[in-house]
Amino acid sequence: MSNNHTLLIHCTDRKGLIYAVTQVLFQNDLNIISNGEFVDKENNHFFMRAEVAGDINREKVLQELHDALPEKIIFDLLPQQKKNIVILVTKEHHCLGDLLLREKFNDLNANIMAVIGNYDTLQPLTEKFDIPFHYISHENKAREEHDAQILERVKQYNPDYLVLAKYMRVLSPAFVEQFPARIINIHHSFLPAFIGANPYRQAYERGVKIIGATAHFVNSSLDEGPIIAQNVIQVNHTHNAQDMAQSGRDVEKIVLAQALKLVFADKVFVSNNKTIIFN
Amino acid sequence: MSNNHTLLIHCTDRKGLIYAVTQVLFQNDLNIISNGEFVDKENNHFFMRAEVAGDINREKVLQELHDALPEKIIFDLLPQQKKNIVILVTKEHHCLGDLLLREKFNDLNANIMAVIGNYDTLQPLTEKFDIPFHYISHENKAREEHDAQILERVKQYNPDYLVLAKYMRVLSPAFVEQFPARIINIHHSFLPAFIGANPYRQAYERGVKIIGATAHFVNSSLDEGPIIAQNVIQVNHTHNAQDMAQSGRDVEKIVLAQALKLVFADKVFVSNNKTIIFN
Amino acid sequence: MSNNHTLLIHCTDRKGLIYAVTQVLFQNDLNIISNGEFVDKENNHFFMRAEVAGDINREKVLQELHDALPEKIIFDLLPQQKKNIVILVTKEHHCLGDLLLREKFNDLNANIMAVIGNYDTLQPLTEKFDIPFHYISHENKAREEHDAQILERVKQYNPDYLVLAKYMRVLSPAFVEQFPARIINIHHSFLPAFIGANPYRQAYERGVKIIGATAHFVNSSLDEGPIIAQNVIQVNHTHNAQDMAQSGRDVEKIVLAQALKLVFADKVFVSNNKTIIFN
Amino acid sequence: MSNNHTLLIHCTDRKGLIYAVTQVLFQNDLNIISNGEFVDKENNHFFMRAEVAGDINREKVLQELHDALPEKIIFDLLPQQKKNIVILVTKEHHCLGDLLLREKFNDLNANIMAVIGNYDTLQPLTEKFDIPFHYISHENKAREEHDAQILERVKQYNPDYLVLAKYMRVLSPAFVEQFPARIINIHHSFLPAFIGANPYRQAYERGVKIIGATAHFVNSSLDEGPIIAQNVIQVNHTHNAQDMAQSGRDVEKIVLAQALKLVFADKVFVSNNKTIIFN
Repeated sequence: MSNNHTLLIHCTDRKGLIYAVTQVLFQNDLNIISNGEFVDKENNHFFMRAEVAGDINREKVLQELHDALPEKIIFDLLPQQKKNIVILVTKEHHCLGDLLLREKFNDLNANIMAVIGNYDTLQPLTEKFDIPFHYISHENKAREEHDAQILERVKQYNPDYLVLAKYMRVLSPAFVEQFPARIINIHHSFLPAFIGANPYRQAYERGVKIIGATAHFVNSSLDEGPIIAQNVIQVNHTHNAQDMAQSGRDVEKIVLAQALKLVFADKVFVSNNKTIIFN
Repeated sequence: MSNNHTLLIHCTDRKGLIYAVTQVLFQNDLNIISNGEFVDKENNHFFMRAEVAGDINREKVLQELHDALPEKIIFDLLPQQKKNIVILVTKEHHCLGDLLLREKFNDLNANIMAVIGNYDTLQPLTEKFDIPFHYISHENKAREEHDAQILERVKQYNPDYLVLAKYMRVLSPAFVEQFPARIINIHHSFLPAFIGANPYRQAYERGVKIIGATAHFVNSSLDEGPIIAQNVIQVNHTHNAQDMAQSGRDVEKIVLAQALKLVFADKVFVSNNKTIIFN
Repeated sequence: MSNNHTLLIHCTDRKGLIYAVTQVLFQNDLNIISNGEFVDKENNHFFMRAEVAGDINREKVLQELHDALPEKIIFDLLPQQKKNIVILVTKEHHCLGDLLLREKFNDLNANIMAVIGNYDTLQPLTEKFDIPFHYISHENKAREEHDAQILERVKQYNPDYLVLAKYMRVLSPAFVEQFPARIINIHHSFLPAFIGANPYRQAYERGVKIIGATAHFVNSSLDEGPIIAQNVIQVNHTHNAQDMAQSGRDVEKIVLAQALKLVFADKVFVSNNKTIIFN
Repeated sequence: MSNNHTLLIHCTDRKGLIYAVTQVLFQNDLNIISNGEFVDKENNHFFMRAEVAGDINREKVLQELHDALPEKIIFDLLPQQKKNIVILVTKEHHCLGDLLLREKFNDLNANIMAVIGNYDTLQPLTEKFDIPFHYISHENKAREEHDAQILERVKQYNPDYLVLAKYMRVLSPAFVEQFPARIINIHHSFLPAFIGANPYRQAYERGVKIIGATAHFVNSSLDEGPIIAQNVIQVNHTHNAQDMAQSGRDVEKIVLAQALKLVFADKVFVSNNKTIIFN
């Protein structure tokens, strides 16, 4: 079992930051096995991600970093281990099925603790993989009430991340605020194009030659959260809206898996509604 | 020199259309060397493109097709030869430069008859390739007046197509109507995303992971004409708006060249604001 | 339920072929809802694929086509329905898992009748989806004996196609000859590069920036059968051989699914060890 | 004018390297505006690239780095400025034309000092851009004699890099050894596939669905040098070998430009016949 840790730091840029950080790591006898820095010059903001190996006294290292670095610095020192996640779904199977398979064969870097659906369509699939499924219908409920029921269930599992694997409802701001930069959604379009309902119908009507998908963090503005990953596939005039949706499903599941791989490896910073990805 | 012709037909679909058309071709001793059909089921519309070889009596074939096919059919029988084009530019060189090189080395399937610019920036480049450049400034002119001056110059060349190779002004409807489905534009974005000015700035602000370009026919609605070709390139957080523009230039010139290759080979139908492409 | 049929024809090219075929279809009151032709000029060979709708007297149409067309023509008239397939596997789960999910949710256009493995690793996964799994170990058996045991089991199901979903053994020529152009394999590389064992190790050693996968029909020459589909993914120096294999798995499953979609829709001709695909 | 410098270091990995380097930079009052490290774990080798800003005493910094770091370290501290290059060509225009346009419009990060051709085909194109062209025919000369004549001409310009823009002859080892990791070639295929002559003919015969191009450093083994960039384009059965070559030209020029952009920005290390790219 690895005792590697990932160090994440971001703060206002100034001279000597890498020197100060690596001094602390060196004096704690930690070996840097991978390191990346990025300076957002427009905002004069510094980002650093380091993977370190060695016997670590986490509290001591954090205290020394705190002393060595400017105030208002944001940092974290995370053990390299699988994340715990809860997945929200509606009726579509392709993203959930892909995630269940990846987890089962140790290809997801996460434990799926539970799946929650506002329909029970995907309960049999989920249970094939011996994972609990909670059916929480939205019918005859106000959004806030429904979200509160989901929230209660989610909290029971205390997950690191929530994954919306084709969850086709908008989460209320009160819900989203509980999980800042911890909810990942797969959007059925190459954002910012075709926001809203029926994106494949829109794409067909517009006669596009390429369709895409976007994985992003969810914030309180619908479809406007920080983008993590995007990909596309070529289509042509012989594809009707249904064909485009079918092609779209393959892109969606691949893009979601790419994004989760990055997020679960602690490679993604969020800043100014954008992502900084050390890959 | 090839005496091949391209036959283009579209009309309401009904049984026996291919049979009727191929009968006329067979009876005129023409060999079909490539053939494609497509039925737009949503609109019950039939499209057919055939390349035929053989000694052709064009008027006779057209008359017999007219007799054999339903009324309101639209068809054309075009000799396979280079198109004559006029290019409109502003200040950016990358698309024009690429087209000049392709024409010079016989890789464009078109004759560039002239280049017209609303700035004289690209006059030296154009003249290096021994092609006339007309500088028609827009300054201190109403749009209609400026467009009328361009139109007068264009008509002098009687081109098959106009190519907007980063012409950064909107053409007036009166101008556009003169050239239905005969003006091709390269748009600096993956339409329908980022319509309007400064698309790379918009892309940077939104933090997208992919940028693209779109070649389309120009109609009276800005950026809304039928899409011919699109392509994309991956970007990341280290790209500022200027870097994205630089990457975008490479995509733009490739996408424009792809679209022109299709259009100049008479492979593109326009219908319902979409393109049907026989490739 | 559709009573559409797909007509597949190929033969030496000559004038009037499309006319002759469409005449038979027209006289049998069949509507052509999609049609494609291609002439391989290098070999003077004609290919045609038509989807027809209407009440069909299959024997009568085939006889009339036979009378109307040259000798040595090869043609087939297939009802549009799901194919029956048997899948062969070894230990890797990603392609099989993807196919099981697609079949379960009606996204494969095929019935998976059985899965056969030379290890029993994937038996639990297969049985989750209520599909029979046959474990036929290769240990202590000559290749011919092992293949004969598989063949016996396969014949019991009389499948339209065999799919090698990461079946990591070479099938004997005697086996392959039983299923000409009916065995589809997914190859762990962008053929013709990196033929043979450990392709991701080879790719890593060579420092490539792109890796790929190839779906192809199996013939008696290893890795040399007609290519159906290929795709690639970008990699870089931070990927070790294991990372490349992980990225490769995603490409492999997508490419295999693309190829099967084409084959199961009767869109793929095989000729001269190449594929002609009407897509 | 920027007085930024790029620091390049590689050596056997050990603890504290980043700390030691950033200490020297900090003590010299230099600001790190971009930084990247990579450890090749398989070979226990450390790579670091930093862009630094500030008034620099280059000799002093290099001496202090030398004192602070292990023996056998290899490092360089390069001013950020355009590279001087000489281009070698044969008859094909597309890569040379693209490079000439990019240089003219300040999009290449290099000065093209001269073009040398073993044919004079591209002399007129080169001279349009006011760049000297030297025609050095290979006819009736041994390879060593021809290469010696080219070498003499190249040395007169003392370029940082040589670019083989479709130079279709093999350079002798004696020539190549003069420019270790300083000759960049564009190879007409997705290496390692289709090594040797007529790659597009080979690709057509094999019926591939994707073709590609590879930019690499030249070493003494033909087509075996470290790969810098690769890209691909989809083809299908309707493309003959000539069509594939035409599609290939577009990929070749884009891939070569991508590779040169990386190399000229000092972002590429060569190690163990592979490239490490800080992008």
